[in-house]
Amino acid sequence: MNEEKKIPYKIYLTENEMPTQWYNLRADMKIKPAPLLNPETLKPMTYEDLRPVFCDELIKQELDENTAYIDIPQEILDFYKMYRPAPLVRAYCLEKALDTPAKIYYKFEGNNTSGSHKLNSAIAQAYYAKKQGLKGVTTETGAGQWGTALSMACAYLDLDCKVFMVKGSYEQKPFRREVMRTYGASVTPSPSETTEVGRKILAKYPNTTGSLGCAISEAVEVATNTEGYRYVLGSVLNQVLLHQSIIGLEAKAAMDKYGIEPDIIIGCAGGGSNLGGLISPFMAEKLKGNKDYRFIAVEPASCPSLTRGKYVYDYCDTGMVCPLAKMYTLGSGFIPSANHAGGLRYHGMNSVLSELYHQGMMEAVSVEQTSVFAAAQQFAKIEGILPAPESSHAIRVAIDEAMKCKETGKEKTILFGLTGTGYFDMVAYQKFNDGVMSDYIPTDADLQQGFDGLPDIKRAQ
Amino acid sequence: MNEEKKIPYKIYLTENEMPTQWYNLRADMKIKPAPLLNPETLKPMTYEDLRPVFCDELIKQELDENTAYIDIPQEILDFYKMYRPAPLVRAYCLEKALDTPAKIYYKFEGNNTSGSHKLNSAIAQAYYAKKQGLKGVTTETGAGQWGTALSMACAYLDLDCKVFMVKGSYEQKPFRREVMRTYGASVTPSPSETTEVGRKILAKYPNTTGSLGCAISEAVEVATNTEGYRYVLGSVLNQVLLHQSIIGLEAKAAMDKYGIEPDIIIGCAGGGSNLGGLISPFMAEKLKGNKDYRFIAVEPASCPSLTRGKYVYDYCDTGMVCPLAKMYTLGSGFIPSANHAGGLRYHGMNSVLSELYHQGMMEAVSVEQTSVFAAAQQFAKIEGILPAPESSHAIRVAIDEAMKCKETGKEKTILFGLTGTGYFDMVAYQKFNDGVMSDYIPTDADLQQGFDGLPDIKRAQ
Repeated sequence: MNEEKKIPYKIYLTENEMPTQWYNLRADMKIKPAPLLNPETLKPMTYEDLRPVFCDELIKQELDENTAYIDIPQEILDFYKMYRPAPLVRAYCLEKALDTPAKIYYKFEGNNTSGSHKLNSAIAQAYYAKKQGLKGVTTETGAGQWGTALSMACAYLDLDCKVFMVKGSYEQKPFRREVMRTYGASVTPSPSETTEVGRKILAKYPNTTGSLGCAISEAVEVATNTEGYRYVLGSVLNQVLLHQSIIGLEAKAAMDKYGIEPDIIIGCAGGGSNLGGLISPFMAEKLKGNKDYRFIAVEPASCPSLTRGKYVYDYCDTGMVCPLAKMYTLGSGFIPSANHAGGLRYHGMNSVLSELYHQGMMEAVSVEQTSVFAAAQQFAKIEGILPAPESSHAIRVAIDEAMKCKETGKEKTILFGLTGTGYFDMVAYQKFNDGVMSDYIPTDADLQQGFDGLPDIKRAQ
Repeated sequence: MNEEKKIPYKIYLTENEMPTQWYNLRADMKIKPAPLLNPETLKPMTYEDLRPVFCDELIKQELDENTAYIDIPQEILDFYKMYRPAPLVRAYCLEKALDTPAKIYYKFEGNNTSGSHKLNSAIAQAYYAKKQGLKGVTTETGAGQWGTALSMACAYLDLDCKVFMVKGSYEQKPFRREVMRTYGASVTPSPSETTEVGRKILAKYPNTTGSLGCAISEAVEVATNTEGYRYVLGSVLNQVLLHQSIIGLEAKAAMDKYGIEPDIIIGCAGGGSNLGGLISPFMAEKLKGNKDYRFIAVEPASCPSLTRGKYVYDYCDTGMVCPLAKMYTLGSGFIPSANHAGGLRYHGMNSVLSELYHQGMMEAVSVEQTSVFAAAQQFAKIEGILPAPESSHAIRVAIDEAMKCKETGKEKTILFGLTGTGYFDMVAYQKFNDGVMSDYIPTDADLQQGFDGLPDIKRAQ
């Protein structure tokens, strides 16, 4: 099919070409994202404020707005080499099937047992926890990818790992739980009776299927109450975007190697870690005025924080124990419909991405579940990879953009992030296969409930 | 960890370095494997005998004992490029954890949605069916990897795919079924009421969890009774070994590129396709007297065809509708214990491997299930990949051999085949995690039942 094309199906960097530094996008932003606020004092969170919850080195990374490049420790580079570099794939087969003049590339981050890009930050966070001499870490997981990634990283470093898993996912994905257990983690469905915040939430909503915000509250409570433990988070935070910049750095290095220049860069957006990581080095060029890439964040219509949320200070968790972050948010009390599959269920959006979106540097669209799974199936049949529901949001919009190129005859180059595989999402695929998948779009009244729980915005700003 | 080592964690061939021909090991065997026999005439099966069941081109490959190298059609090479080359991985982390002087490499074939090496032959078989103008193919699947692979290949080529799935796996692995359905295949638990042979088996054993041999009989019946359909098989046959030679050819090319010479080559063995594919080009060197590699076939103690079977002519399927093959066999009526997880449940062994084992060119060992899963968990924690139960048989023996090196101080180089991932085997992992996994070793009396059903050997030879 591509005998005469020079660009291979898959571009793998060599180990020597792999990035050895993470890139901190904030360093190149003229208007910085708003700082985290202490929920009690409403003053910017300090290093000392955060120390009971987070690992020391990670706090430094979280608060560092100025250092553009941060060395990746050798131990993390060694771990990266076990599953990286991740390939940049030219979707030749998809292009042919769509009969589009567009050139489609995807950066595939699913070639590891966690099934997603989450491992990039998990090993970093586990490493700094270990280096600090901690016994273990706590975390939350929604779709299960982050929990799996963290359990893998902790197993590698011989660190204890306690995972609070959103109850809906825990029940829909027993096999995710078993993967985490195989790696030695303990897994508790959230909300649970094991924490004060969990008991409170259960008392108020006994039948809740849980939410990320709620699981975060439980994990934070356990971390702060247990000697030698800290809390780690798989998305939303700036440190996570920093670690995930490896995605974009590798993608850009692979593209540069072959002289490929993307026009449109597309990523799914839940808390923002994959999207932020993918776009970081490209956004840097746009911020410097060197390039004019289009960036598209794709979110589920059932949890539309960028497209229908408010850009205000809000709690990062349902239990309101975490710092306040200025972000596009649906309110920390917003719990997405139970029939929404997979991840991307977080009520807010990373503050760097929120600020960039606010500045008009990035677009956002929301897509409905059934059309996402239709794109997923189409992609699987043509490109051979069964994608994660999350990643399939990006596939949906990549296909839509490629079809626009077909209409207009424009030869655009599209890059999207294929964040992971859907092997643990077959309950959702089964619904799609059986034709019983439903779409849910919250009404304005539904959203208002979440907004009603926002902290007093004037006080907080 | 390996700053100064020259061999990278993962060796990826470039697309240009990928093999463009399969290698047919039979061409270099002085004593050829015994031919398939027509069960009615007891004469060697001819091209015409096989045409009602198999695709024309595949029959030619099946019967060709003399052509050493066969060109891989461009369309298949293009498909291969979607998920190949598969990496050759240096298990640096495992070596360090075992504190062994051994150098351990594994060829990882799990980086695709089918989760295993099966796709290498699935696309070839689907391609030749399509080229012949067929409407579809039928097949059996045990653990589900082959059925998944075939459904992917058929989806890519727009070919219908009917899969008979061993009932035990069908029930234990509903998600495997959904992957196949997502790729558009129909999946029927076997034995089923949809075929004559299925109804017969159900009448005799109403509570059977099925077997590969039984599912093969059903798939063959449907293929021969349906216009425009043929039967395809994921292992055991020589054509499958031919296609799977891509594994060994790539592994050898990667090793040659870095001047690596293996001492011991280890593969798990069910029907033999992965093992045969992995060892083919290395065995060629041994057959020619150029090298003296040790080859170790690893089989489950619960289905020990090489270590406890007889080397005789036997039916390939329970329903006795297939040709007779001379092989190490437990008898086509042998059904492994239901508590044996994963694949490697086939009663016989590919005739090339059987003959090589008979000639003393290859060793075989059997391992028990619990020790296999212990190796799987150890590997997962250290190397980051959650292996398939099948592949973990090879891991078990690779670790054992590495530990022998530690005892003796010998710096041997070990290569093993990591055929796939265990993401759809979490029911089995759960049993292991819960400490309720049991080992089963058939007694001599158990085996005698299978041997009693063997065809009259003198007549057949």
